Formats: sequence, structure tokens, C-alpha cells
Amino acid sequence: MKLFVIKIGGNVIDDEAQLSSFIKDIATSSGNKILVHGGGKIATDMSKQLGIESKMVDGRRITDAETLKIVQMVYAGLINKNIVARLQADACNAIGMTGADANIILAHKRILVNTDYGYVGDIDKVDAEKIALLIDAGLLPVMAPLTHDGKGQLLNTNADTIAASVATALSKKYEVTLVYCFEKSGVLKNMNDENSVIAEIKSSEYYQLKQTGVISKGMIPKLDNSFDAIKSGIHSVIICHAKNLKKIILGENIGTRLVP
Amino acid sequence: MKLFVIKIGGNVIDDEAQLSSFIKDIATSSGNKILVHGGGKIATDMSKQLGIESKMVDGRRITDAETLKIVQMVYAGLINKNIVARLQADACNAIGMTGADANIILAHKRILVNTDYGYVGDIDKVDAEKIALLIDAGLLPVMAPLTHDGKGQLLNTNADTIAASVATALSKKYEVTLVYCFEKSGVLKNMNDENSVIAEIKSSEYYQLKQTGVISKGMIPKLDNSFDAIKSGIHSVIICHAKNLKKIILGENIGTRLVP
Repeated sequence: MKLFVIKIGGNVIDDEAQLSSFIKDIATSSGNKILVHGGGKIATDMSKQLGIESKMVDGRRITDAETLKIVQMVYAGLINKNIVARLQADACNAIGMTGADANIILAHKRILVNTDYGYVGDIDKVDAEKIALLIDAGLLPVMAPLTHDGKGQLLNTNADTIAASVATALSKKYEVTLVYCFEKSGVLKNMNDENSVIAEIKSSEYYQLKQTGVISKGMIPKLDNSFDAIKSGIHSVIICHAKNLKKIILGENIGTRLVP
Repeated sequence: MKLFVIKIGGNVIDDEAQLSSFIKDIATSSGNKILVHGGGKIATDMSKQLGIESKMVDGRRITDAETLKIVQMVYAGLINKNIVARLQADACNAIGMTGADANIILAHKRILVNTDYGYVGDIDKVDAEKIALLIDAGLLPVMAPLTHDGKGQLLNTNADTIAASVATALSKKYEVTLVYCFEKSGVLKNMNDENSVIAEIKSSEYYQLKQTGVISKGMIPKLDNSFDAIKSGIHSVIICHAKNLKKIILGENIGTRLVP
């Protein structure tokens, strides 16, 4: 059975028109799906409003206790539930979750020598059985980028990583396609030319593309995660513009396809 | 099969020591359970911090668009996920939900002639089958006091009412006991005397107790909901101090029991 694990990035969430048509596309495409969403700039805006400073290192938010509170409220409360309610309006039976809910994603607080990322989680275990049970009950899990440590602590976790880990775990039960939807048409040869999409990247070519700087910094975690996921058995990874999701689900060759 | 639908009030949520021992009691009592939580004063505090004024009429918050955002963030994001993560820490497989998740509670925006309560929902339908499916999968649903209208709009909904509606809907599948946990020992004859608990209130006595003012204003929605629920087939309703939950589940006669 096929399963699409779809990651939607912050830029789409921040853009009402894009988000609206994206939600419609999810709701009106048939087949099993999981949606993983990022945060967008709403958390940053909320932190500012509350006088809490957002700190970023290497594109990752430093999550102190106050920031975790904001992230939890904005990701799990505001964005997650808005997406769920809007999917329901399109007759799509969504269920919003963090990694703590039904214990689906266990993680541990990241420990590094030089940087304390705060309450940031690295994933240890995904409960594929529990997620499959929900899918088989006709539900579409909508996952906020939060995990937990099993000791009562929620942890901020990169949404790209959650998508790849969930896709990998579920590849034992489904033929999984992982789709990263964002604001560009795919991995571009030339950042400023939307027509320069690289149609396919082989695992063996990836290292060189990184070395020569063709692949830009922001794309690296996404692609690192993707090639790890491919090695672990998922069927394919597609990186595409959010507006093309429906075509991707229908099997069209758009965006960038990563292959072993 | 027995099922306990347990409502926990804001005062317990606001008190770290009480909440902590309450969560331990839920996690360590056997049997099927659903937890419904209220909001506490965290939402009010957050509104103040953001410069949004909270308005109350008859003990109910007036929910304009900005207030709904706060309520959604605090109830569904902060409180709900904290409770879930802490139950998980005690090996209790909780799953946090609003009424929008899995479409479990459909409501409509309250329409009254004299007062606009804003985004406040009155419940139309509870999907008992979906909730039972989660329970039968070994999960403990933890419900935040939010519903949705099926058209994409989340709605603020009284947690006592959610508890009663969910209990009623599930009484077709389980022998349901509805337990309202709060900061008093039960319904008191004398508000200032914790030893004046009324052990039992019959449906026929309730009207008179309301008329003579023995039952105070804050208790009335809880008891109105309860007697409606009893009429609709739930086994029993118990109103008790949060610290006595475990004894209640074990079958001890504590607090106030409402009977037909």
C-alpha cells in the first residue's frame, strides 16, 4: 500500500493563499497521507510580542524554556489545530499530533560539546505501529515539529527530520514516498532561476554537489535526511513546490527526485 | 466495560503540586479513562502579557478572534501537551485532542439575541465510535476544551459540557462514570465548610437545592450538565476533590454522587 509523507515548510504556512490551496490539494487527493508541518515566522513574531528573544544557530532555533513554551503554543496549539480544522472542513479526517501524543516519537535532548541548543530533541524511536493504526482507521495524522523524551519533557525537533524519520519507520509497512514541499520548484542549479530544477540526484552525485556549493546551505539538512531515508528503505524522495503536490501524488514527474 | 470520563478544573491545573499528584493518580489507576481539562488562569495571564483584555459574562469567557488564538495556544498547545507528556512519563499512553482532531466533537457557534459570546461552541455531535477506537487501541484521550464547526472554525467550549457530552455519547458502548474533579470535597451545604459535603443528590431534589440557593452559581452548569447526562443513560456522576480521584476509581464512596 502506498503512503505519502508530506512535509510543508514555514513559508507556505505564512502565506494564506498558498496554505489554503495546499490544504485543498491534500484533502482532495486520494490515498494514505501523513502531513508534517514546520513553524513559520509566527513563533518568532509571538516571541517578539512577548519580549522573548529568538536565537538561531545554523538555521536552528535555540530553545530555552520560554521559547519552548512559545513553540509549543504556536506549533501544537495554533498552527496544528488550524490545519486540522481546515482539513476537516474539506472532509479530510485529520488528527493533530506531537511526538508525545500516543508516544509516537521518542527523542532525547541534544547534547553537544560547543553549543547548548536547549530543549531540542534528536529522534530515537518512531512508533510505526501506532501511526499505522491511525492511518488504517481512516485518519490523516498532522504532525507538529515537537517530540518528547518519555520523562515528561517536550522537545523542539526539526520538521524535515521528523518527516524523514516517520517515512523511514513506516517504510516497513507501506511503500513510502517522502515529499518535501516548499516555495521553490525543486533543488535548483541556479538559486535565482526557477527553471534550473535538477530533475534527479543520485546518492553518488550528492557529495560532489555539496562540495561544489551547487546545493545551498538551507537544503543540506533536508537532503542529508533524505539520502539517509532512502538508504533505510523508503521508496523515493521528491522535493517540489507546494503548488505541485497534487500532481506529484498523481505520479507526475515534477520537482527533484532523489534516488539511491 | 467500565469507562471513567474525568474532568479536571483550572484550579488544579494552576497548582503544580496538585496537578502532579493528579497525573500520577490517573496514570496508576487501571481501566479505561478519558481526561477533559479546563484552562485555568494561564490563558488570562497570557492575554494580559499580550495586551488583550479578557472579558467574562456569567463565568464564561467572551471569545473574540484574538482571544480564541490565545485559548487555542494555551489549551491545545501548552496545557494539553504538558499533560500528555507527563502522563507518558508515567507510562500512560495519552493522546491529546481537540474536538477538531479526528472530528470527534462538532459544534456550532453560539447564537443568542442579547449576548455575542464570540467563538464559543455549543456541541452538536460527539463521534463515540472514533473515541472508542482510540480507547480500544490502549490510548487515553486527553481533551482540550475546544470544538470545531466542520467549516474550518475552532470554537471555545466549556470543559464541563464537553465532559458531559462525551460521557453521554460513550454510554452506548461503556458503563460510564463521569467524575468532576475540583478543589472542593464535593457539593457543599455550606460553602465554607469542607465537612458539609452532600453525599447524594437525587434529580428530584436538585431543583429545590437550586431554588433555595444551597447550590452556588459556579456549580450550576456542572450540575445541569450532569443531570442531563444521567437522563441520557450514563451510569453515575461524582463530584469530588481532585486528590480523591484514585479512591473514586477504586469504588470508594467519596464526594457527591448524583443519581436519577
